[in-house]
Amino acid sequence: MNFLEERIQKDGVVKEGNVLKVDSFLNHQMDISLFEKMGEEFKKRFEGKPINKILTIEASGIGIACIVARYFDAPVVFAKKSKSINIDGDMYVAEVMSFTHNCKNQVIVSKKFLSEEDHVLIIDDFLANGCALQGLISIVNEAGATVEGIGIAIEKGFQIGGKTIRNMGYQLESLAIVEAMDPATGEVTFREQ
Amino acid sequence: MNFLEERIQKDGVVKEGNVLKVDSFLNHQMDISLFEKMGEEFKKRFEGKPINKILTIEASGIGIACIVARYFDAPVVFAKKSKSINIDGDMYVAEVMSFTHNCKNQVIVSKKFLSEEDHVLIIDDFLANGCALQGLISIVNEAGATVEGIGIAIEKGFQIGGKTIRNMGYQLESLAIVEAMDPATGEVTFREQ
Repeated sequence: MNFLEERIQKDGVVKEGNVLKVDSFLNHQMDISLFEKMGEEFKKRFEGKPINKILTIEASGIGIACIVARYFDAPVVFAKKSKSINIDGDMYVAEVMSFTHNCKNQVIVSKKFLSEEDHVLIIDDFLANGCALQGLISIVNEAGATVEGIGIAIEKGFQIGGKTIRNMGYQLESLAIVEAMDPATGEVTFREQ
Repeated sequence: MNFLEERIQKDGVVKEGNVLKVDSFLNHQMDISLFEKMGEEFKKRFEGKPINKILTIEASGIGIACIVARYFDAPVVFAKKSKSINIDGDMYVAEVMSFTHNCKNQVIVSKKFLSEEDHVLIIDDFLANGCALQGLISIVNEAGATVEGIGIAIEKGFQIGGKTIRNMGYQLESLAIVEAMDPATGEVTFREQ
């Protein structure tokens, strides 16, 4: 097990309905030294890629992205979620379905901060069905920028997102891929990487 | 002028209605090396305080808080904004008025992550009327924790928030205090510190 898998075993809480709570270290309280290890690991896995920008999505991706960005010496841009449809023309917009909140959201990024010169590493805390991630990818493509890779903390390997994104040909690196969770025992099974 | 005031002069954009756009380096695209300078400066200004936790609020406070946290070797907790009223009993809740969006929001923090043992540095990107900040303070107080200080990137000195918070006796440190802005010339006047 790597450092993140170990931490999930130790502090993650498995709930009914395939819910994995990691709010004590990842997405409500945030362990910055853990994020630094994640930054080091992503730096290794994306070695040699000409990454000059980190893209993430509010809110829980931002903390990880900012710490990871230190290892790439790159600025972070975070996509905003918006329910409004009154977006002016200066924004890239993607529609994404939120399963958690059962509604459609718009994901927006100002055109000022993504262009065809950008080589983008997308960072997020979770990957499940991949809707948010596909929104981010479509925004990078709309900008004419290049997706150099995608770095995820925890992928739910039993949901469709990871497979879809890998089938599209992207280098997707998830530090922990959960294959199964048992709410009765609290046990989490990880995919061998 | 300090490093942040210089950056605001260089890259901030003054709009009608006392709007200062700093989205190219602070709250949409984020300049991590700038955040590191902010961390160093806050470390100096809160020297000797027994800070063991950083509290911020989603979304644009999170990036700054995570980088600042490195200088205090402390975890970050971010308060979530919620419109729903179905909060279970495990949450601290504060009601805050959002002037930007002209609505009332709830600000919530899980009780697991704030207790009477915590000595909290509150971090946010902007201080204007101070509503969000008062919500965070009330949550820290509800938890029985101690507010050791408040670190803000940009304070709008012509709005009431800073005065209110300082009158309450808190050590509030704003790295740049804007006294006036002229949308015609783009000029920003800072308070001498």
